[in-house]
Amino acid sequence: MTAEMHPSRWGDPAAAAPLPDTARELVRLAFGDLPAPAAEASGSRIAASAIDEDLLDGLRRIVGAEHVLIDDDLRRRRTRGKSTPDLLRNRAGDFAEAPDAVVRPADHDQVQALVAYAAAHRVAVVPFGGGTCVTGGLAARRDGLAGLVSLDLGRMTALRDVDPVSMTATLEPGLRGPEAEALLAGHGLTLGHFPQSFEFATIGGFAATRSSGQASAGYGRFDGMVVGLTAATPAGELRLGTAPASAAGPDLRQLLLGSEGALGVITSVTVRVRRAPEATVHEGWRWACFADGVAAARTLAQAGLLPTVLRLSDETETAVNLADPDALGGADGVGGCLMITGYEGTAEAVAARRAAVTAVLSGLGGTPAGEEPGRAWEQGRFHAPYLRDALLDEGVLVETLETATFWSGLESLHAEVTGALTGALDGALVLCHVSHVYETGASLYFTVAARQAADPLAQWQAAKAAASDAIRAAGATITHHHAVGTDHRQWYADEIGPVGVLALRAVKDALDPAGVLNPGVLVP
Amino acid sequence: MTAEMHPSRWGDPAAAAPLPDTARELVRLAFGDLPAPAAEASGSRIAASAIDEDLLDGLRRIVGAEHVLIDDDLRRRRTRGKSTPDLLRNRAGDFAEAPDAVVRPADHDQVQALVAYAAAHRVAVVPFGGGTCVTGGLAARRDGLAGLVSLDLGRMTALRDVDPVSMTATLEPGLRGPEAEALLAGHGLTLGHFPQSFEFATIGGFAATRSSGQASAGYGRFDGMVVGLTAATPAGELRLGTAPASAAGPDLRQLLLGSEGALGVITSVTVRVRRAPEATVHEGWRWACFADGVAAARTLAQAGLLPTVLRLSDETETAVNLADPDALGGADGVGGCLMITGYEGTAEAVAARRAAVTAVLSGLGGTPAGEEPGRAWEQGRFHAPYLRDALLDEGVLVETLETATFWSGLESLHAEVTGALTGALDGALVLCHVSHVYETGASLYFTVAARQAADPLAQWQAAKAAASDAIRAAGATITHHHAVGTDHRQWYADEIGPVGVLALRAVKDALDPAGVLNPGVLVP
Repeated sequence: MTAEMHPSRWGDPAAAAPLPDTARELVRLAFGDLPAPAAEASGSRIAASAIDEDLLDGLRRIVGAEHVLIDDDLRRRRTRGKSTPDLLRNRAGDFAEAPDAVVRPADHDQVQALVAYAAAHRVAVVPFGGGTCVTGGLAARRDGLAGLVSLDLGRMTALRDVDPVSMTATLEPGLRGPEAEALLAGHGLTLGHFPQSFEFATIGGFAATRSSGQASAGYGRFDGMVVGLTAATPAGELRLGTAPASAAGPDLRQLLLGSEGALGVITSVTVRVRRAPEATVHEGWRWACFADGVAAARTLAQAGLLPTVLRLSDETETAVNLADPDALGGADGVGGCLMITGYEGTAEAVAARRAAVTAVLSGLGGTPAGEEPGRAWEQGRFHAPYLRDALLDEGVLVETLETATFWSGLESLHAEVTGALTGALDGALVLCHVSHVYETGASLYFTVAARQAADPLAQWQAAKAAASDAIRAAGATITHHHAVGTDHRQWYADEIGPVGVLALRAVKDALDPAGVLNPGVLVP
Repeated sequence: MTAEMHPSRWGDPAAAAPLPDTARELVRLAFGDLPAPAAEASGSRIAASAIDEDLLDGLRRIVGAEHVLIDDDLRRRRTRGKSTPDLLRNRAGDFAEAPDAVVRPADHDQVQALVAYAAAHRVAVVPFGGGTCVTGGLAARRDGLAGLVSLDLGRMTALRDVDPVSMTATLEPGLRGPEAEALLAGHGLTLGHFPQSFEFATIGGFAATRSSGQASAGYGRFDGMVVGLTAATPAGELRLGTAPASAAGPDLRQLLLGSEGALGVITSVTVRVRRAPEATVHEGWRWACFADGVAAARTLAQAGLLPTVLRLSDETETAVNLADPDALGGADGVGGCLMITGYEGTAEAVAARRAAVTAVLSGLGGTPAGEEPGRAWEQGRFHAPYLRDALLDEGVLVETLETATFWSGLESLHAEVTGALTGALDGALVLCHVSHVYETGASLYFTVAARQAADPLAQWQAAKAAASDAIRAAGATITHHHAVGTDHRQWYADEIGPVGVLALRAVKDALDPAGVLNPGVLVP
């Protein structure tokens, strides 16, 4: 079992660090002197496990007594995910929503038995992988149910099968990103899926949330990698995936991908894998302005000439990332915009693609910035959540959100969401980057920082609502890779419309008639 | 309105031709002298339109009286699709299943009104595009309903919108392949979707059946091109697609793609388009055996070096296509296997990809066969269905079927299906080619020819069942690009399992509670 995260902080405690001096100076310049935030609650409120002993016995019969855990410390760590609202509540010592028990099945059959038992006895089940959710996807309701258990997939960590001819691998859902990569590396393979949560998030979570990684330009989205899956539902088990593609009806795999534990518990996925790269290089490009960089990214995507990694920061993010306080808020983009391009593959393929991309970017007016910005990005690529903890400690409210739309609407979406956030958060700093690109559009990933108000939770909720309204008003998706959870449900209902909601509820009612799987999550 | 096809034959009557002499000689060598088949019925049995005049009036109020048609000739042409069983029944003059009326809506709102009216009055609705279905997808049941109407989308043929920045276009469902391409060509664009049915099949049909075209290696499958869609359902309208990709729940677009008119009527799709190619070239490669060619196709797919078209015939198909009777049935593949590679794009992109592919194929032992085989394939690419009519005229039973699986199972699938077909059809000739390739697998497309028995319909049904059983026993998909219809329903139920069927039925019941949309099609 990998290290547990602190309930109120990200990641490995050993990797956490106080705010670096340059960042502290930026914060002072942006927000002035900040009052210290409320101290973290030393004690914490957690309700006693309220589930009947009979039900616990039933769960114990399925997974073994040693795998049904009710200690407060573990229940605290299974209470929420890692959104800023989650951290704020946890820092305040509020664990009122803790699960009654943590249940740790060993395999698909135990998961199947657990969901059947939970349905029969009306116990809510919250599948738990890495606990990195940032949209309230672990905050299931228990109204009218006999209890709520966290179904911890941490024991299901096998690489079940490798098919080196088809280039597929079958992975269990509890594998964290680095564990999956290490097992595949033993076969000379890689998944190529590196979201910011990579170090802690799990295969099951990637599938259940339609995750997208930093190398998606080269490796694709996680939902595009999945060619087969098994899931346990109260209605029985589901085994899908007979071919890379099929015309046999709707693609039901795409119904389980993104189902966030509300339709079934994903117990294995068969994914397309690639050969581990011989060569990897990241480098930087400078653009005069965001619009020029966006046009360049679009040109690459539409020419079929994408690098493996493609990321473009707007003027503000570029200035902040380069720790260039003078450029902050320069409306005319004093420092321009930084793009990161990365290449992975055989040495030959990397050289060929790099040369082709370089020719296009140079032709469009990009200025090569060498490998140093690429290295800096690569080294810090999983570090931002630690930085958030340090900023929260200093009294800065910081959170991220993301969306996607078609290219023709991207710049106006950028302006509308930025405007909504600065309108809702006085003096906020709003950074943005294009994080994932496609032929027809791209995603925008926003980072927001502001002075913490007296009630930072309410402060953020108002800003998030304003940004979400702006996203939907622009016709964009409420989430490109963070899923729906509970936080996005209202805007998700608007996005798929009443008939979409009807279809989704119908599937939910068919697979989970007792409504015990992640109640209140995803399904509007 | 484009030309109507003959009810019992494929395509444009002007393009039909008797069997060429070389083919006639091949037939004689393969099957000996054949008795002439039963003459086509000169009269034909068609039930009178049995729908109430009140209901017809209701339909007329929605679309206008001139767009509700009940003449026998048109009803015959809307009775079935173009599978060999369909043609055999139609040739025998059996139009017992003809629709009561053909209704031709002008736009989405009329379709929406029609499905609502049909649901309220329990009238079965069969969406009709090009009528090229080969899986019984137009053979809806009318049990217990007040009538059955063919919802002909032939008036909905607009290119509604082009977004040259996002490289998307919004197309109406009644557009046939060439019409859509002609409209897009006006903007310098192409869809790149060229299934064998291209000349007659429609955009709505491509979407509703997850169609895949001959250039899928370069342009992808139709379901991969769709970024947005609208559909009319009895429960209301559905508008999906806010971004190229999203993590906002299951991808509901993928539920309508492949829904075969049973969940809703697709009234527009927004698809990714590409710039019309500057250059196009097709060429041939020879391989010593099918296994070598398959390995080469797999290498290209897994190296990310696919041409735009990639097709590999097995030994028998190669021999037949080269009209080389001596090689027929040569178990050791006297003539080897022919691969067709095609390239489309800018002159520069074509040259670069062609050079890279050539290097790989040469390195793997392929022998270049020049552009002549490529030209021959290109010229004949939409002609096979005409050839089928001519063969049926000569007393040859001929039909196709297709499947797909992962690479490691492909050769055994090829052997199993071939064995099932030759086992069921005495003296049959079974040709096969790899028609679509992916990183993790490929499709197999079989063409079967045999002496027609006294009851060719029963003869084919037995062979089709044997092949379908073999496909499912091998764990492959029952259809790669021909959809489920009524013919595949039994094996489709096996493929998605009882819980998959439960989910699909739940969506059907939610969107079409009266069960009037293509009853009996798709949903097991």
